[in-house]
Amino acid sequence: MRWNELSTPALTVDADVLDRNLRRMADYCRTHGLGLRPHTKTHKIPEVARMQVRHGAVGLTVAKVGEAEVMCGAGLDNILVAYPVLGREKLQRLAALALDRSMLISLDSEIVAEAVAAAMRERGATVGVLVEFDAGLGRCGLEPGPALVELARTVMRLPSLRFRGLMCYPGQIGGDAEARRRELARVAERVERALEGFRRERIPVEIVSAGSTPSAFQSHEIPGLTEIRPGTYVYNDMNTFYQGACAMEDCAARVVATVVSTAVAGGAIVDAGSKTLSSDPLRFGPASGYGFIVEAPDAPIVKLNEEHGYVDTRRASRALKVGDVVRIIPNHVCTCVNMHDEIFVVRQGEVEGTWRVAARGKIR
Amino acid sequence: MRWNELSTPALTVDADVLDRNLRRMADYCRTHGLGLRPHTKTHKIPEVARMQVRHGAVGLTVAKVGEAEVMCGAGLDNILVAYPVLGREKLQRLAALALDRSMLISLDSEIVAEAVAAAMRERGATVGVLVEFDAGLGRCGLEPGPALVELARTVMRLPSLRFRGLMCYPGQIGGDAEARRRELARVAERVERALEGFRRERIPVEIVSAGSTPSAFQSHEIPGLTEIRPGTYVYNDMNTFYQGACAMEDCAARVVATVVSTAVAGGAIVDAGSKTLSSDPLRFGPASGYGFIVEAPDAPIVKLNEEHGYVDTRRASRALKVGDVVRIIPNHVCTCVNMHDEIFVVRQGEVEGTWRVAARGKIR
Repeated sequence: MRWNELSTPALTVDADVLDRNLRRMADYCRTHGLGLRPHTKTHKIPEVARMQVRHGAVGLTVAKVGEAEVMCGAGLDNILVAYPVLGREKLQRLAALALDRSMLISLDSEIVAEAVAAAMRERGATVGVLVEFDAGLGRCGLEPGPALVELARTVMRLPSLRFRGLMCYPGQIGGDAEARRRELARVAERVERALEGFRRERIPVEIVSAGSTPSAFQSHEIPGLTEIRPGTYVYNDMNTFYQGACAMEDCAARVVATVVSTAVAGGAIVDAGSKTLSSDPLRFGPASGYGFIVEAPDAPIVKLNEEHGYVDTRRASRALKVGDVVRIIPNHVCTCVNMHDEIFVVRQGEVEGTWRVAARGKIR
Repeated sequence: MRWNELSTPALTVDADVLDRNLRRMADYCRTHGLGLRPHTKTHKIPEVARMQVRHGAVGLTVAKVGEAEVMCGAGLDNILVAYPVLGREKLQRLAALALDRSMLISLDSEIVAEAVAAAMRERGATVGVLVEFDAGLGRCGLEPGPALVELARTVMRLPSLRFRGLMCYPGQIGGDAEARRRELARVAERVERALEGFRRERIPVEIVSAGSTPSAFQSHEIPGLTEIRPGTYVYNDMNTFYQGACAMEDCAARVVATVVSTAVAGGAIVDAGSKTLSSDPLRFGPASGYGFIVEAPDAPIVKLNEEHGYVDTRRASRALKVGDVVRIIPNHVCTCVNMHDEIFVVRQGEVEGTWRVAARGKIR
């Protein structure tokens, strides 16, 4: 079956592009001596995670205990839950995983450290801990300095926790070259400040984890990092493209959609709305819109309802007719994938099979 | 178990508020002689659909064949697929449903009419058709006038289709009182213009379907309507509230979330981001933000990442501490529900059970 014979809407991934994206990131990390612990939140698929491991990943990253359960259930190991997990039910499940897998968790408060430690102790499990500092995004993480060292000491005192190192998320690195340079310098300064405190106290820091897709290939310019956690690079998307962090042909995921109405003059409606593409806006680039139509680049998707994509065809060089099947590159592939229970694997236009998005919906 | 003992994030519905919302809409429709065919896209749960039928709904509305399959599989009947379904695989499934259920479909083009007719003929099935006209939103639907009548005639000529009437979606009615009055008049004028063409040609129009939650209780002010399809009213949300279409205590759905970090000054992070709340913005009202925290009304959620909600606590009268459990009323409950595989049913604060969001992910 060809891609345009799929029942729509359908999320697809180009297997060759995926493989090239996986290889490029793995090569980059090898070249620069960085560990690659890809964030699986983008794909949520054990099959893709296994490919990442085959390409040399040192482990995997997830955001949720439920996602870790899916990956562990598929035989994967060395999982970082890059999230301050809190709540008895989730921590009991984390402890069950930590009994026979190598698990890491990130946290930035004593409350979470003690809750994790208590749950581990109850099961006789041990979990590695990365203490999180804020690299400048202002989301999670302590300010680099004495409080960070103090929290690491607390972790070291708690018997069922093992202090492994530091984590930050430099999610603000993005946009144009000048903005990236500025934020890269800021992140480097904060990483250095964080490490300096530990050097002074002679506390060994085995892991220093950072990384995001837009900043991934500049990670070697931040001294001190030992590993990175990019996620989006497997598929890429319009936000990645518009930041110059990938080429258009590196966008592996596309939503196949059908034009279902052209009744209103100047427009066309496709059967992909916010419940298929997600309503995440375009955050970078000259254009606005809700996804790029490969077959009609000059026909922007200007608005989404839940099941309707509004295409502005007024300046389109190609007419869109009811029944036409098109491919849409989403703005933000992570939230798009999260809408789908399966993804169709396409190679050279031919549908080879499907993967279940097995960790989708594992929100706890 | 109390609501604040749930593992988070968790989507909850207050059963008493839900019941009151269902009753109010059913009473309104009965009072005004309007058929109620609620759109199930908001809840996607057969149990709730059955309640709607018990409250007197004449049938149900869905957007997707897959959603219709879930509802039919649960024993429900009289289903309108309010969408121009196109594509052989989906139409074969629609035909299979139409063999032993009363099914309706909406469409606005000859291409879709002929495709639906062909699929029905192949299975020996019949489906009712509502021809869609544009009530002013500019999404789907023909301009009221001769082309609309012509499409109805085409439907009447196709043997496996049965012309049942007209449909429109007055989705632009919303906002403040003045904006609502203006758009209500515009919709009424367009409904009248659509019906006028059919009267002149002496074509009987059995069903005239419109309705949305923000405009629902004004439907009787649009002469000619026979039924309405509100969806959001079951749960309501901040967008409904800020349009004055419900009170805050009519918001039945809440996401229970935990504060997981307060490491960055002036803020708190909750474990509900765009993969839990959806990234749909607030479309109405004085405030911006991504959901209303019941326990901290003066602490707006100013930004979402996939698994992080950024709460601005700088003007909050109550401190948010790591481990605090809060309830968030989402901006747009339809896209929020679509993130969840289950919803917890709460009555007077006590968790009574769960419903599976069975039609979630049925995107085709």
